[in-house]
Amino acid sequence: MFDSIFQNVRTRHPLIHNITNYVTVNDCANMVLACGASPIMADDRAEVAEITTICAGLNINIGTLNSRTIDSMLIAGKRANELNHPVVLDPVGVGASALRTSTAMKLINEINFTVIRGNISEIKTLASGSGTTKGVDADVADKVTEENLDKAVAFAKSFAAKTGAVIAITGAIDIVADANTAYCIRNGHPMMSSITGTGCQLSALTAAFVTANSDKPLEAAAAAVCAMGLAGEIAHKRLSPLDGNSSYRNYIIDAIYNMTPVQLEEGAKYEVR
Amino acid sequence: MFDSIFQNVRTRHPLIHNITNYVTVNDCANMVLACGASPIMADDRAEVAEITTICAGLNINIGTLNSRTIDSMLIAGKRANELNHPVVLDPVGVGASALRTSTAMKLINEINFTVIRGNISEIKTLASGSGTTKGVDADVADKVTEENLDKAVAFAKSFAAKTGAVIAITGAIDIVADANTAYCIRNGHPMMSSITGTGCQLSALTAAFVTANSDKPLEAAAAAVCAMGLAGEIAHKRLSPLDGNSSYRNYIIDAIYNMTPVQLEEGAKYEVR
Amino acid sequence: MFDSIFQNVRTRHPLIHNITNYVTVNDCANMVLACGASPIMADDRAEVAEITTICAGLNINIGTLNSRTIDSMLIAGKRANELNHPVVLDPVGVGASALRTSTAMKLINEINFTVIRGNISEIKTLASGSGTTKGVDADVADKVTEENLDKAVAFAKSFAAKTGAVIAITGAIDIVADANTAYCIRNGHPMMSSITGTGCQLSALTAAFVTANSDKPLEAAAAAVCAMGLAGEIAHKRLSPLDGNSSYRNYIIDAIYNMTPVQLEEGAKYEVR
Repeated sequence: MFDSIFQNVRTRHPLIHNITNYVTVNDCANMVLACGASPIMADDRAEVAEITTICAGLNINIGTLNSRTIDSMLIAGKRANELNHPVVLDPVGVGASALRTSTAMKLINEINFTVIRGNISEIKTLASGSGTTKGVDADVADKVTEENLDKAVAFAKSFAAKTGAVIAITGAIDIVADANTAYCIRNGHPMMSSITGTGCQLSALTAAFVTANSDKPLEAAAAAVCAMGLAGEIAHKRLSPLDGNSSYRNYIIDAIYNMTPVQLEEGAKYEVR
Repeated sequence: MFDSIFQNVRTRHPLIHNITNYVTVNDCANMVLACGASPIMADDRAEVAEITTICAGLNINIGTLNSRTIDSMLIAGKRANELNHPVVLDPVGVGASALRTSTAMKLINEINFTVIRGNISEIKTLASGSGTTKGVDADVADKVTEENLDKAVAFAKSFAAKTGAVIAITGAIDIVADANTAYCIRNGHPMMSSITGTGCQLSALTAAFVTANSDKPLEAAAAAVCAMGLAGEIAHKRLSPLDGNSSYRNYIIDAIYNMTPVQLEEGAKYEVR
Repeated sequence: MFDSIFQNVRTRHPLIHNITNYVTVNDCANMVLACGASPIMADDRAEVAEITTICAGLNINIGTLNSRTIDSMLIAGKRANELNHPVVLDPVGVGASALRTSTAMKLINEINFTVIRGNISEIKTLASGSGTTKGVDADVADKVTEENLDKAVAFAKSFAAKTGAVIAITGAIDIVADANTAYCIRNGHPMMSSITGTGCQLSALTAAFVTANSDKPLEAAAAAVCAMGLAGEIAHKRLSPLDGNSSYRNYIIDAIYNMTPVQLEEGAKYEVR
C-alpha cells in the first residue's frame, strides 16, 4: 500500500505551505521537491491565510518560533482547518522553554492537526502539557526500546485519541499511531541523528504524503516515516570513508529523489500493533 | 562577448548586497562567491542604506518578505538608485498573495530596477498588476514554448520599455530583453526545477554580472542566464545514478565555480530576436 | 594537548545555544554536530534566557542582526555570564554599519566573552570602536602576514588583556591569544574563503570546544582554529576537478565529522609567541 501512497505524491505533486525554522528550511524545501511535491515558505501574518488557501497542505514547525511567526502559525492553521487541508505539527524543542510549551499547547488547542510528529520527549511534553525536554534531542530516559514499546504504543494511541491527530514518535524505533492502530517502524540509521533537521525534513515529507493521501492519514504518515528511514539506510550504504554528516544529508535527500514506490513498499520495515 | 563579461566579474569581484529569503540564502551566497563576486546579507532597516553604500550592487528577493524587511527593501533600493548601483528584483511568488503583489508593485514603482527576473507567471503578474500565480512555480498555461515565443518576446520588450529594466523571464526557454533586443536562451536542464532556489541563485548571479558590467546590463543579464543554464547542463552530466536533487544543487554551484569565461562563451546557446 | 581537548568535545557533547545569522545557520548546526556537540538555535527574547540555561555554552553571531535579535543576544549573554557558561562572539561585518558597530560594542561592554573571533578588520574595528571594514571580508591593507605578525600578536594580546576574552583573529595566519600567550596557526587553505560562513562555522565550533574545556579557553579556542584549518586541508585534498566551493563546504564539515583527536594533535600547525 505504501507504493500507491508514494505514487500519489509523485502524481499529484501537492503544493505544501511551510511555516518553519530558518535552520533547516532549505533542506525541508529540497526534501519536499525530492518526493515529488512542491514547497512554498511564507510566514508573514499578512499573507499566510492566502498562501495556505492556494496550497493543499500545511506544515507548521516551531524550531525558531518568534512572536511574529506564532501568530502566523495560528492564522494559517485555522485557515487550513476551514479548508480541510491536512496540517502537520512539528513541536521542535517543546519543553525547552515556556514559550515553546505554551505555543505548542495553544496550537494543539486551537488547530486540528492531521499529524503531530516529534521525538518521544517532545510528544510526552505535549501530552502532559509541561516540559522536560533538553534542547531538541530526546532525553535518554524517555527513549523507546523493545522493552517499553508496548507502553509507548499505548501512550501514542491514547494521545492520538485525545487529539484526533495521527501521532508520529520518531527515534530508533518509530511509532505512528491513531487511536486504534500503531505502525512500529524499524527503518533508519543511527547516524541520521548527526544531521541537523532530519526530523524537520521528515515532518515536511509527512505533510506532502498526507496531503496527497488525505483519505488515509495514518498510512500516509507511516509511509513517510518508512521512506525517510529507508532513505537513511540507502544513503548510509553510499558513504565513502571520507564522507561525514554533511554529505550524508545530501545523500538522504538524493535517496528520496531516486526512491521508487516499489522500493519503498519492499524496503519498509514495520509491524502493526 | 560573454567571456569578457564573466571575466569582469572574476576580476572586479563586486560586493553585492542581498536582501533575500531565508530559504535559499546560503545557496545564493555560495553562488555569488562561486562566480567571483562577494556577498553580504543585511536586512535591518537601521543598516541597509549603509550596507548598500559600501556595496556595488543590490539584489532584492521577496521570497519570504515580511513587514520588517519590506521597508528595508525600499530603503536599500532607493539608496542604490541614488548611487547608481545596479539593482535586481526577484519577485518570488508575486501574485500568490496580496502582500506579494502590492509589495512588488510598490518596489517597481519606487525603485528603478536594472533587471527584473522571474518566471513567466511572476512577470505577467507584475505587468498586469494583479495576481494569477500558483505558489512559486510558473503556471503551466503561461509557459513559454517555441510556439508562443514571439509573443512572449514582444511582451518582455514591452514590459522592459515600460519599466526601463532588463526583463529576464526564465523557464525552459529563457528570454532576456530590453525594449529593443531580446536574447532567447536555450541552456539549462529540466531537473533544475527540482531544486529549491535555482531562480533565487540566478538572480544573485545576475546581480553580480550586471554590477561588474554596469555599462551593458542586457548582455550581462543574458550572460548570467546562460551561465546558470550551462552550469545546470555541466552538473547534470556529472550526476551518478545515486545522485538526486541535493547533490545536483551542489554540482551546479560547483560548475559556476569552475566555469571559465571561454567555456561560457562557447557553451552559451542563444539567438537574438 | 589538542587531542584531549577534542576528545572532551566528543565525550561531553555539550549543548550549545546559537543566536546566529540565517545565512550560514544550517552549516553551523551541522558543524556543531560534526564535532560531537549538539546545537540549539533560538532567538526570541521571550525564550533565550531559558534556552541558554539548559545549554552549556552560547555562541552569538551578528551576521544578520536585527532589532529583535539584538535584545535577545544581550539577554542570553547576560544569563550565560550569570551561569558561568562560555560565550563566544562573532562580530560579523562590524564596521560595515553603525548598527553593527554599536551592537558589537554594546555586547562587549555588557557581556564577558570567553572568546571573540573575527577577521583582522573586524577585530581592529572592535578594538578601536569605529569602523573600517568593507563588508564581511578582511581589508587587504589589514591582513596578517609574516612581516607584521609580531605586531598583530601584540595587538591581539593587548585586546585580550583589555576585554578579558581570548581573541581569535583568523585569516591566512591565525592568531589565538590571551593577554600573555598567542598561538600562531598555519593550518587552512585559501579556498576556504570562497565558501560562505567558514568563519561562522568556526565560531560555532569554538563555542563547542571552549564549552567542553571551560578550564582552558585559550587552548580550546586554538584547538578549534587548528581543527577548522586542518579540515580545510583534508577537504581540499579530496576535491575532484569538477568539485567547487559547494562540495568543498560539505567536505569540510565531513572532515570535522571524521577527524580523530590524534589526527588533530598531529595535524595542528602552530607556534606559541
